[in-house]
Amino acid sequence: MQLKNDLFLRAARGEKVERTPVWLMRQAGRILPEYRQVRAAAGDFKTLVKTPELATEVTIQPVDILGVDAAIIFSDILVIPEAMGLNYEMEERRGPVFPKRIATREDLKMLHVSEAEELQYVLDAIAMTKKHLSGKVPLIGFAGAPWTIFSYMIEGKGSKTFSDAKKMLYTQPEFSHQLLQMITDSTINYLKGQVKSGADLVQIFDSWAGILSPQQYAEFSLKYISQICDAIRDVPKTVFAKGAFFAREAMNSISCNVVGLDWNMDISESRRLVPGKVLQGNLDPCALYGSLADVKRETVNMLKAFGPDKHIANLGHGLYPDTEVDKVKCFIDTVKEYRHHG
Amino acid sequence: MQLKNDLFLRAARGEKVERTPVWLMRQAGRILPEYRQVRAAAGDFKTLVKTPELATEVTIQPVDILGVDAAIIFSDILVIPEAMGLNYEMEERRGPVFPKRIATREDLKMLHVSEAEELQYVLDAIAMTKKHLSGKVPLIGFAGAPWTIFSYMIEGKGSKTFSDAKKMLYTQPEFSHQLLQMITDSTINYLKGQVKSGADLVQIFDSWAGILSPQQYAEFSLKYISQICDAIRDVPKTVFAKGAFFAREAMNSISCNVVGLDWNMDISESRRLVPGKVLQGNLDPCALYGSLADVKRETVNMLKAFGPDKHIANLGHGLYPDTEVDKVKCFIDTVKEYRHHG
Repeated sequence: MQLKNDLFLRAARGEKVERTPVWLMRQAGRILPEYRQVRAAAGDFKTLVKTPELATEVTIQPVDILGVDAAIIFSDILVIPEAMGLNYEMEERRGPVFPKRIATREDLKMLHVSEAEELQYVLDAIAMTKKHLSGKVPLIGFAGAPWTIFSYMIEGKGSKTFSDAKKMLYTQPEFSHQLLQMITDSTINYLKGQVKSGADLVQIFDSWAGILSPQQYAEFSLKYISQICDAIRDVPKTVFAKGAFFAREAMNSISCNVVGLDWNMDISESRRLVPGKVLQGNLDPCALYGSLADVKRETVNMLKAFGPDKHIANLGHGLYPDTEVDKVKCFIDTVKEYRHHG
Repeated sequence: MQLKNDLFLRAARGEKVERTPVWLMRQAGRILPEYRQVRAAAGDFKTLVKTPELATEVTIQPVDILGVDAAIIFSDILVIPEAMGLNYEMEERRGPVFPKRIATREDLKMLHVSEAEELQYVLDAIAMTKKHLSGKVPLIGFAGAPWTIFSYMIEGKGSKTFSDAKKMLYTQPEFSHQLLQMITDSTINYLKGQVKSGADLVQIFDSWAGILSPQQYAEFSLKYISQICDAIRDVPKTVFAKGAFFAREAMNSISCNVVGLDWNMDISESRRLVPGKVLQGNLDPCALYGSLADVKRETVNMLKAFGPDKHIANLGHGLYPDTEVDKVKCFIDTVKEYRHHG
């Protein structure tokens, strides 16, 4: 089906566009009362993720309510370890917890390289969302970066230092590579399935990129992200490695189209370091706590710093759940109304 | 009293030294069985901090047991908010918790700019430690950076995003500046007291530097760190702003002597960005989970990258509590035995 608004995709491919496209990480989520209603009806987070009708509904909400230029499928990066054999629970307030975690080579026996069909509910949600969107805007698919998924599988939960996962890299590098490769292969299968089901672009989230040293990042993370980018050929690819300011130059040499920036990364410096890619980001999500006038000013400053070309407007991190909807709308509307001069 | 080993101080002043000095953040702490014994006898963390005899004992332990080139007074950055009027509790596993926190301008009535004498137990511990060290090595005093202290006072506890504290910067910048100035003035009084009591160098820890945007960091953090550095004239000063890779260039223009680096910060890039300062750091604390051969190799690599001058060897973060003592010793001994050639 022909897209009515393909601004986001054209920008992602590096084409000149009439205005900067905009969407927000975590746009489908707790900031919308309509989301909270569906979430409450679902009972728990994982039911919402695993029920295509519900996932579709919350995926489309921000397109209709906020007017963003792209939808992103409502799901969770931790579906991959689950498909590989490691179940997790989502605890209120505490976040994800894995009852079993990977500690030794022996534990690999619990795991297998997963096929796309083992996450059929996500593929179904994508197909269903595409149908309901009926070409209104493109749909983004996504997965976690292998290093981030690895961290969760080793730590069993979130962590401030992820020192168990990092310890594994230092003490058992071969084992680490073996597990990272299994995650990578599963992720490639998964993202290929997403594209086949209708995803127009895929984004890889490396949430824990920032806790590795530059050398470790190259060896244990970027290498696998690069494999994934090489394997996905039919759609543009975005890599968002939060905190990996030190890896920006290296991002030039992998086959992604778009590089996401967090709010710590200076825009003009990033342009200099990553000249070959489209950049996505990077307003501090906390900037949306300011007044409407503040939000507008900060958004315009961001747009000016990026300039008219090769930019997709977004935050530098996911929306925080206590952000007011009118501030989010102000961010989106400011981008949509802004025209670069000169 | 004349110092027998003043290598650390001479290096901090930028002088040429015969070998690189070494100490570790959190060297006085849970990695040492001798510490755990004193800690258990004290009953709880705050008693240990508030009892000069005990604080002195654990401060000196790593000098005797590990052979580091500097001692750092055993204390806590959160003694400042407590002296200002905001008590905190240290909860096992959970970390520090403030029963009351600062939410409005009205709450400032709870607070006052504290005098050094309100933290007499720290000053006593410093004087006592100096006496017991009898010139063996220099003693480092320290405080938290105003932004980091501010974050704890607003959030009331640790946080992944510190979004309440950041919200305050965006929504109430004047109020934020007022509180930051109060913390700064209290910190200056405190550090002057530490120097008078015998501290040979002071280090400012900006633990939450990395969650601010570059612009906010300049306005709400570096400005106050700079005031502190200007106010402390009699001893060298070190600033360690974890995660503030974007502020390295700006560190050149404040009156500190030493800039601490975390393990994310590339060494040669940092040399280029901060040519005017001595650099301290920056081995990944997780590198000490490797084998003795690994630790040695990584340490030598670090030493080579920094070169012979203007470097104080340290980790890029505090020692993690589950690090083995022989790995720590290996790190220290490798530095002490290494000689730069050419």
